[in-house]
Amino acid sequence: MVRVPAGGVPDPQPLLVASGHAGPGRLPPPVPRVVGIVGGGQLARMTHQASIALGIRTRLLAASADDPAALVVPHVQLGRASDVDAVVAFGRGCDVVTFDHEGVPQPVLRALTATGVTVAPGADALLAAQDKAVMRERLTGLGVACPRWSVVPDPAAALAFAESIGAPVVLKVARGGYDGHGVWLPAPGRLVPDPADPADPADAAGGEGPFTAGVPVLAEERVDFTRELSALVVRSVSGQAVAYPVVESVQRDGICVETVAPAPGLDDEAATGAQAVALRIAGELGVVGVLAVELFQARDGRILVNELAMRPHNTGHWTIDGAVTSQFENHLRAVTDLPLGSPAARDRWSVMVNVLGGDVPDLHGCLLHVQARDPGLRVHLYDKPVRPGRKVGHVTVSGDDPGGLTELRTRAWHAADYLAGRTDG
Amino acid sequence: MVRVPAGGVPDPQPLLVASGHAGPGRLPPPVPRVVGIVGGGQLARMTHQASIALGIRTRLLAASADDPAALVVPHVQLGRASDVDAVVAFGRGCDVVTFDHEGVPQPVLRALTATGVTVAPGADALLAAQDKAVMRERLTGLGVACPRWSVVPDPAAALAFAESIGAPVVLKVARGGYDGHGVWLPAPGRLVPDPADPADPADAAGGEGPFTAGVPVLAEERVDFTRELSALVVRSVSGQAVAYPVVESVQRDGICVETVAPAPGLDDEAATGAQAVALRIAGELGVVGVLAVELFQARDGRILVNELAMRPHNTGHWTIDGAVTSQFENHLRAVTDLPLGSPAARDRWSVMVNVLGGDVPDLHGCLLHVQARDPGLRVHLYDKPVRPGRKVGHVTVSGDDPGGLTELRTRAWHAADYLAGRTDG
Repeated sequence: MVRVPAGGVPDPQPLLVASGHAGPGRLPPPVPRVVGIVGGGQLARMTHQASIALGIRTRLLAASADDPAALVVPHVQLGRASDVDAVVAFGRGCDVVTFDHEGVPQPVLRALTATGVTVAPGADALLAAQDKAVMRERLTGLGVACPRWSVVPDPAAALAFAESIGAPVVLKVARGGYDGHGVWLPAPGRLVPDPADPADPADAAGGEGPFTAGVPVLAEERVDFTRELSALVVRSVSGQAVAYPVVESVQRDGICVETVAPAPGLDDEAATGAQAVALRIAGELGVVGVLAVELFQARDGRILVNELAMRPHNTGHWTIDGAVTSQFENHLRAVTDLPLGSPAARDRWSVMVNVLGGDVPDLHGCLLHVQARDPGLRVHLYDKPVRPGRKVGHVTVSGDDPGGLTELRTRAWHAADYLAGRTDG
Repeated sequence: MVRVPAGGVPDPQPLLVASGHAGPGRLPPPVPRVVGIVGGGQLARMTHQASIALGIRTRLLAASADDPAALVVPHVQLGRASDVDAVVAFGRGCDVVTFDHEGVPQPVLRALTATGVTVAPGADALLAAQDKAVMRERLTGLGVACPRWSVVPDPAAALAFAESIGAPVVLKVARGGYDGHGVWLPAPGRLVPDPADPADPADAAGGEGPFTAGVPVLAEERVDFTRELSALVVRSVSGQAVAYPVVESVQRDGICVETVAPAPGLDDEAATGAQAVALRIAGELGVVGVLAVELFQARDGRILVNELAMRPHNTGHWTIDGAVTSQFENHLRAVTDLPLGSPAARDRWSVMVNVLGGDVPDLHGCLLHVQARDPGLRVHLYDKPVRPGRKVGHVTVSGDDPGGLTELRTRAWHAADYLAGRTDG
């Protein structure tokens, strides 16, 4: 457990770890209990699941009554996260408002904050997760190691930047990207991506170049990395913070498909260093709730920050089954300013594999096979209609055998592949 | 994992553990997904929590919109479990109907079953958990070791029975008792309870004797036991079954206040024997879902069946945090005929202590202290108004140190005492 300086928070509150403040004859101070979540996806769904044990009452602002979270939460208001009136009205019924995505526009966040409700994370912090140019600027200001970067107005400027650093660059739209969308990679042997090339395999946005999106474009050094890591921390309103073990995150086409906790072979110094960086960013930016810091482990040994996310994160799903306190429970404890729970791993290894939609529409029926084959498998289905490549669930397996990682990975991948229709038995 | 003969089930189905029944190009068989729960208490609340990961949709028949489960489940029908029209209408929207208590009258269960919905556990099985005379008759018929017992029409017959076995007897109403209500204990040195004695400390029903309740009365040998145990098993529609580690259950005034998993010092033979008895009862009675078999460990070494419960049970709450698969998840998997999950303990010890209502009305505020003091504590609040002695939550702590049980018990009791207002810091 680490106390993190509040940094950018203008009025830091004392750490609420007093002893004996309640008990016989004394009443404890009131603690927020009604938590509104903007967004109805699987993150909100799993947050509601965690809220049940805490006696917290969740409310949901969801786009559709069929959203994964709307199917399990009693109090649902239908509306868009970009609709200021809807969000403000939603906030009036809540003690705290938090998010299952970073897509709430800043003017909406500001209007919500002006009503007096606690918004966690706050608008200033969230901006660094919403806008990659702001993120890079803030991290660079803090001296946090990042890939070299520049905001570039056009392809010529991107090329000039690549030439100036003597390395290939990726192009990213500063706002609106997710899961690999909005990122352009250079072809082999090229210094810059060709945004006009529809055959560019990384053009996940569908043939439009980054400079046509009407938002700033970043050119970032393409890091020669050996693997990706994720340092997930949680910070409360009071500034208490915990750091989960650093995990290895395997990406495919820009989507996290697997995490291994803890990252195999990561030495203690590097792991502690990554946790310290994440805790420092959380404190300096005034993050409240989960902060996931996605990292590159470069071939030259450096660990560089790739992305920030300020919400429960795919690289933390393993914590539901593999840690003493899940990221979802700690997110709720953080935004309601309850003391945080232990982030310790419960087993030597936990492997999480995402279930991406395949050609089997009835995931639930597939449980007959995967659960019979592996009674120790932990399955999490999001109750979404299956579409190819869509995140529709995840599986986790844990084990204590130090040499048992390969078997755990095999078990988790078998189940995920079967649910995706990629294997037969 | 043990396959249990279906026993009393007239038409046992094959075990659904086929390999390769789904996969590319083949559709898995349909699996029930809408599970109705009759009763809105904490057991239904925690069952809903478990349903979220499985992609199961729960519906609730609750007496009040403020019931613990009704506060967290979206689909709630208000109605009484004794109202046949309400229960039948509720069942029409469900694939399976299950229960968070055993209080649904037999005629209601029969009417519900006649609609064609799967009722799990079924009416025949449930009868043995609803009526202690039926339970004793069935168990005796199976040769299961029980305290000596007799249905007695009046106090004189109770005395005659006690004299015939040469031991004191307790009196129990056959139907309607719970948490110590409906049980009369003999005063020290007496062979039978004095039902007319309002000072009898065990007369939890409030001064009325057992013979005034209009239901059959059992006289049962008062067992000289050293402790109480609980063997919790889960059996699916197909007859697959799993047995959790046998736990020690500490009772106070007829209410379970603590469980230690596994039961300390219980030798392997006794533990396996208790599990085998519970599995046999589940199979022979055709139980579907959780069966909790409450046991006396007598001073002379015998293990005798005290009570049966056919629903998730207080002595299984430790499984949420302490077992690979919780009793709530396995209950859902059993009633929807999914393969069951591993019942193995995740740690050497898990200690669960109930939070009984005290003089602090704001349990949620008390979290500030107990969570700050013990980051490894697992808290479960039921969001009930606090009333003295009422079960309003539970806490669990787990650990791997073989000699660490005392410390775990101290931690769990501190938290429960603090939440109940019985300690100051």
